[in-house]
Amino acid sequence: MLVNRRTLRIEWGQCDPAGIVFYPQYLMMFDSSTGWLFERTGLTPSVMRRKFQIVGMPIVEVGARFVKPCRFDDEIAIESEVSEWGRSSFTVRHRILKDDELALDGFEKRVWAARDPNGAIKAQKVPEQIIASLSDPTGATMISMDNE
Amino acid sequence: MLVNRRTLRIEWGQCDPAGIVFYPQYLMMFDSSTGWLFERTGLTPSVMRRKFQIVGMPIVEVGARFVKPCRFDDEIAIESEVSEWGRSSFTVRHRILKDDELALDGFEKRVWAARDPNGAIKAQKVPEQIIASLSDPTGATMISMDNE
Amino acid sequence: MLVNRRTLRIEWGQCDPAGIVFYPQYLMMFDSSTGWLFERTGLTPSVMRRKFQIVGMPIVEVGARFVKPCRFDDEIAIESEVSEWGRSSFTVRHRILKDDELALDGFEKRVWAARDPNGAIKAQKVPEQIIASLSDPTGATMISMDNE
Amino acid sequence: MLVNRRTLRIEWGQCDPAGIVFYPQYLMMFDSSTGWLFERTGLTPSVMRRKFQIVGMPIVEVGARFVKPCRFDDEIAIESEVSEWGRSSFTVRHRILKDDELALDGFEKRVWAARDPNGAIKAQKVPEQIIASLSDPTGATMISMDNE
Repeated sequence: MLVNRRTLRIEWGQCDPAGIVFYPQYLMMFDSSTGWLFERTGLTPSVMRRKFQIVGMPIVEVGARFVKPCRFDDEIAIESEVSEWGRSSFTVRHRILKDDELALDGFEKRVWAARDPNGAIKAQKVPEQIIASLSDPTGATMISMDNE
Repeated sequence: MLVNRRTLRIEWGQCDPAGIVFYPQYLMMFDSSTGWLFERTGLTPSVMRRKFQIVGMPIVEVGARFVKPCRFDDEIAIESEVSEWGRSSFTVRHRILKDDELALDGFEKRVWAARDPNGAIKAQKVPEQIIASLSDPTGATMISMDNE
Repeated sequence: MLVNRRTLRIEWGQCDPAGIVFYPQYLMMFDSSTGWLFERTGLTPSVMRRKFQIVGMPIVEVGARFVKPCRFDDEIAIESEVSEWGRSSFTVRHRILKDDELALDGFEKRVWAARDPNGAIKAQKVPEQIIASLSDPTGATMISMDNE
Repeated sequence: MLVNRRTLRIEWGQCDPAGIVFYPQYLMMFDSSTGWLFERTGLTPSVMRRKFQIVGMPIVEVGARFVKPCRFDDEIAIESEVSEWGRSSFTVRHRILKDDELALDGFEKRVWAARDPNGAIKAQKVPEQIIASLSDPTGATMISMDNE
């Protein structure tokens, strides 16, 4: 699978009175990290939404184990990859590293969701192009923005 | 003017490593307090949006002076009222009190905004019913949800 | 076990462009709901921290399944209870209900944590008084704030 | 003055159901942008806190005018600079630009704050080194981390 790695600095406003990251902030990092991973397809999030006429990738399950606390000013790396493809769902695994050690290991299970003609949100088959692109560890299989 | 008063308890996740409220959290309180003030018209936020066909009340200006810090577990009161009505805008003043002393004094200037036929957000005249309701200090002038 | 039930209204700022709650916001609700559950012991969060000389109850694992989306203005109920007591850890189960149907089912596993003499955060045995109080479904077993 | 410029991409979780940035999110950007500006002194935030024995730079006033809404996926630039130095306070001006046009113009007035021997937070004179560094538009006047 393609692993997207990004580095972040822990900000003051992400930390709680114990001086460590307030844990829902990690889930916000998961959400944006999934966005950046999917951008490795070559499509920005809003282009991806228009091209495939989806409303987004709503979450159906999330989980995380917290191994080491992160503090204000820490540099962290987030490594994200699709760990499993379902028909209309997929699981993104996120590992947060601090000083090259695992600080947090988590996942998001999401669905590929469009609006049906009545406006309701409905799961749809994940496009083959998306699967091919994010399954290529080299990151070279990209989707054209042509005719978008 | 009608003053809406609500009480809140400061939560762990709203505080920073110095043990005091991370200041953007106060602006989130302003936003929801404006929602509760407008609910005193008798309309829930989503009903108000449908009834008057607005997209919301986007902010055009905000300001706040921070007088006393609030800490985890503090009980605070937020008093909110419209301090000025413009044609298509209005200013909501918010005062946050702790132990009956002023902790924070702020305002939000917002516009009454609908979508024009092209989908763009556009300011519109604030309905007289809204002004009448929120200008009545007794809170007795309410808008019917009938025919909504 | 003692179940603490609280009701909340979904706020504008908790929702995303798809009009549904941005999922990390649910985890913030979990965090504060755990706080309110522990307050059923009779101790406010800051008193509990001082009385038992803990730094807090840091998270070690979290999980949630999202069953039904919640939208701006929805009224929800959160039911929280300790579902398992370990020696120095415990699991809080949170269920979020909308119109009496399950919208979300999740848990937080946390440790009872003090600072050791070097300032490091260290798990400690959960006090019997806390276990007794939160295991009493009637909510009548409360801890005195005397001598606090 | 030294202007620090950073670019950001607007994230899904920063936007509201109207599809635009939920305004308190901009204040979070202000807060972290002030952090990055002060880092141009050569000191990381936590080193700056230790070196000058401050608890932080608590806010005393904030204000912002919202000129153009920003949406999910927009690229923005934030330009931050100290616009005024007081004795123990200073004002940071933040401008947010989208497509090189002003989207938002705001400021934060903060104090340089230490703990007094009783643990209370107290304003202190802003160090000359900090003023000299952030007043140099070239960014070349940096503070050594030696002996920190």
